[in-house]
Amino acid sequence: MSNSLNRRKFLQAGAVATIGGFLSPTLQAKNLEKASSDVGKSKWDLDSPALCVDLDKMEQNIKVVHNRLKGTSVKVRPHVKTHKCPAIAKMQVAAGAVGVCAAKLSESEIMLENGIQHVLMTGVNVTIPKIKKAMALRKKYSGFIQAVDNPQNAQDLQDAAKAAGIIADVVVDIDVIQRSGVLPGAPALALAQMVDKFPNLKFRGILAYDGIATHVVGFKARKEWALKSFEPVVETYNKMKAAGLNLEIFSGGSTGTYDMMQDIAGFTDVQVGSYVFMDRQYMEIGGEKNEKVFDDFAPSLTVLATIINMNHPGRIITDSGAKAFTLNQPPAIVIGEPDFVYNAGSDEYGTISFDKANKTYKIGDKLEMIVPHCDPIVNEYDFMYGTRNDKVESILQISARGKGQ
Amino acid sequence: MSNSLNRRKFLQAGAVATIGGFLSPTLQAKNLEKASSDVGKSKWDLDSPALCVDLDKMEQNIKVVHNRLKGTSVKVRPHVKTHKCPAIAKMQVAAGAVGVCAAKLSESEIMLENGIQHVLMTGVNVTIPKIKKAMALRKKYSGFIQAVDNPQNAQDLQDAAKAAGIIADVVVDIDVIQRSGVLPGAPALALAQMVDKFPNLKFRGILAYDGIATHVVGFKARKEWALKSFEPVVETYNKMKAAGLNLEIFSGGSTGTYDMMQDIAGFTDVQVGSYVFMDRQYMEIGGEKNEKVFDDFAPSLTVLATIINMNHPGRIITDSGAKAFTLNQPPAIVIGEPDFVYNAGSDEYGTISFDKANKTYKIGDKLEMIVPHCDPIVNEYDFMYGTRNDKVESILQISARGKGQ
Repeated sequence: MSNSLNRRKFLQAGAVATIGGFLSPTLQAKNLEKASSDVGKSKWDLDSPALCVDLDKMEQNIKVVHNRLKGTSVKVRPHVKTHKCPAIAKMQVAAGAVGVCAAKLSESEIMLENGIQHVLMTGVNVTIPKIKKAMALRKKYSGFIQAVDNPQNAQDLQDAAKAAGIIADVVVDIDVIQRSGVLPGAPALALAQMVDKFPNLKFRGILAYDGIATHVVGFKARKEWALKSFEPVVETYNKMKAAGLNLEIFSGGSTGTYDMMQDIAGFTDVQVGSYVFMDRQYMEIGGEKNEKVFDDFAPSLTVLATIINMNHPGRIITDSGAKAFTLNQPPAIVIGEPDFVYNAGSDEYGTISFDKANKTYKIGDKLEMIVPHCDPIVNEYDFMYGTRNDKVESILQISARGKGQ
Repeated sequence: MSNSLNRRKFLQAGAVATIGGFLSPTLQAKNLEKASSDVGKSKWDLDSPALCVDLDKMEQNIKVVHNRLKGTSVKVRPHVKTHKCPAIAKMQVAAGAVGVCAAKLSESEIMLENGIQHVLMTGVNVTIPKIKKAMALRKKYSGFIQAVDNPQNAQDLQDAAKAAGIIADVVVDIDVIQRSGVLPGAPALALAQMVDKFPNLKFRGILAYDGIATHVVGFKARKEWALKSFEPVVETYNKMKAAGLNLEIFSGGSTGTYDMMQDIAGFTDVQVGSYVFMDRQYMEIGGEKNEKVFDDFAPSLTVLATIINMNHPGRIITDSGAKAFTLNQPPAIVIGEPDFVYNAGSDEYGTISFDKANKTYKIGDKLEMIVPHCDPIVNEYDFMYGTRNDKVESILQISARGKGQ
């Protein structure tokens, strides 16, 4: 039953070891070939569940953020953890982004290998093998910047950069929500100075991400929250500036706060992610002009599902459950049916409960849903269908899908 | 910006159309090649998040279900929606399974193409293009059986089978939990008789899945629930038998009820899925001998995460959040640390809260977690590491990952 396989054998076999024998590594190629035969079809004829992005809406979303920030000193550094798709990252860069953010090393690698020149990794690499990989990546791609948030990690980065014979670009991540980052104030300043003094590290500035502020409901309340919670970061920035440190990067913000950061002196760029797709979680935070719905950006990302059972009144069963939607709340919005409540709690099936419907449905009909939370849903699919006027125009490979390492 | 690409062009280019240009389809091959270089390593040296399966425990789980049902008339037809891995399906068949169940057509296809001969698809195919695909699959693989749960669908299957020049094997799915299936009693009997009379369909029997009974806490309460909720199915079976229908398949049951169905006359096989891996949701239902923990099967599936931040007392941050664990509840169990509460609510980060720890931890240390709910977590990964005595023995490709269609 047991067969171990080393790298050399793998390359010889063109296959991978499994308990049951060898499997072909061409599976993804086959999937993409199948998908490519859908180009030109109406999206309503796609097999489901299908992840679709309306290209007109997405292109518009990408423009909106730049238009809104025109005339301010704030640039855009979109977070690719949302779409995991080099093709979309290229669109963002073409629209004027100064680079992209990536959450993980493997995600950064996919972007750099696919032609994205400037990648700021917002997470930290803490194990020695991973730090070595990060340094090899920096050696190959000069536009790779990595975050650091503790002194031991800074020392490890320095050692690995020296061993790799490079000077690696580093930003210090500052703790806002007790998740990642070094504590603001003295600890952050000391860490920045430590990095700055290391011969093989180049201190490029700071980042601070507030994952709570971004979902505060109401524009005014959200802005107050965002600026208040950022005060320790601003104080830290000022201390670093007074200490003469290079602060060419002062990155933060998000889709919910993208137009709130321009009042902060020295702030350089917003790490917007969800704005390309939008989702119900962001729609419900409310906007500046529209208090009920945050509609600065249009929901471009949808999932198509097929009705497979209508045995019971007020109940529609679809082929798209938790593996298609994740368990994020609030539920997906069924487009055109405000009374429908979509329950994706079952792995393989969706269950819609309703009292009234605007249309009459039958088994086999398609429904289109706005997603609850875009990032983890994209991570369920190998590709998305790019549509225009409901017709499939292209297949967008989600190349960093599953790249959580 | 727009470039549409048809199937012919795709084959010529060996690549796939995206908005940004062309991407190589060799990504998965590269991922698997990287993974194969981990064979022989200690699992504690793997990059994280890493999905691991303890091969000794999994092999034992596969044996247990057969041993327990020895001497009864109940066979085992494991559900591959749990593992999506042909290598594991092969182990199940080698251990004596009569075949496997699959939830979706694309999942069935992966199993058949990878050498699994007998696949019963428990879901229905309702659109004409999908029915045609299903019939093409049946034409190629004689061991493919599909479910039907309404008269129109039976007619569509008959038409497609006729057009394909085959006699397709069909089971009738009976509604237990208002999700899939035809209503028990007269509607189910009428549907079975309709299928039986169609010249291009062969009626093979029935299936009925009770996704609620399987998670009822307490062995006695669960058995009572399972048998009570199955009564309409049993009545339907008896009506079909009286009508002289072929009932060579009477399939149902699950990991939580695998040893409760042998009292039902005519019942043929249990559709156990989670038993290979187990998870916290199943551990908490309680067993016959151990009322507190359902321990008939050992938790073989784990996720490894790395500690990346310990800034705040009673709080550990890991690199493994919702994309590694899904949002299923109750939370993952941190092995060796009963006081740790794992929160995977953030996409990229895990947050552990605790009052006391059995060990002292530092940044970079690995933690190993028993998963909340195995099926959707497996669907997040392209492969799992097969380990024995904590050493990586093989890479198990999750070939049907994302195959929800």
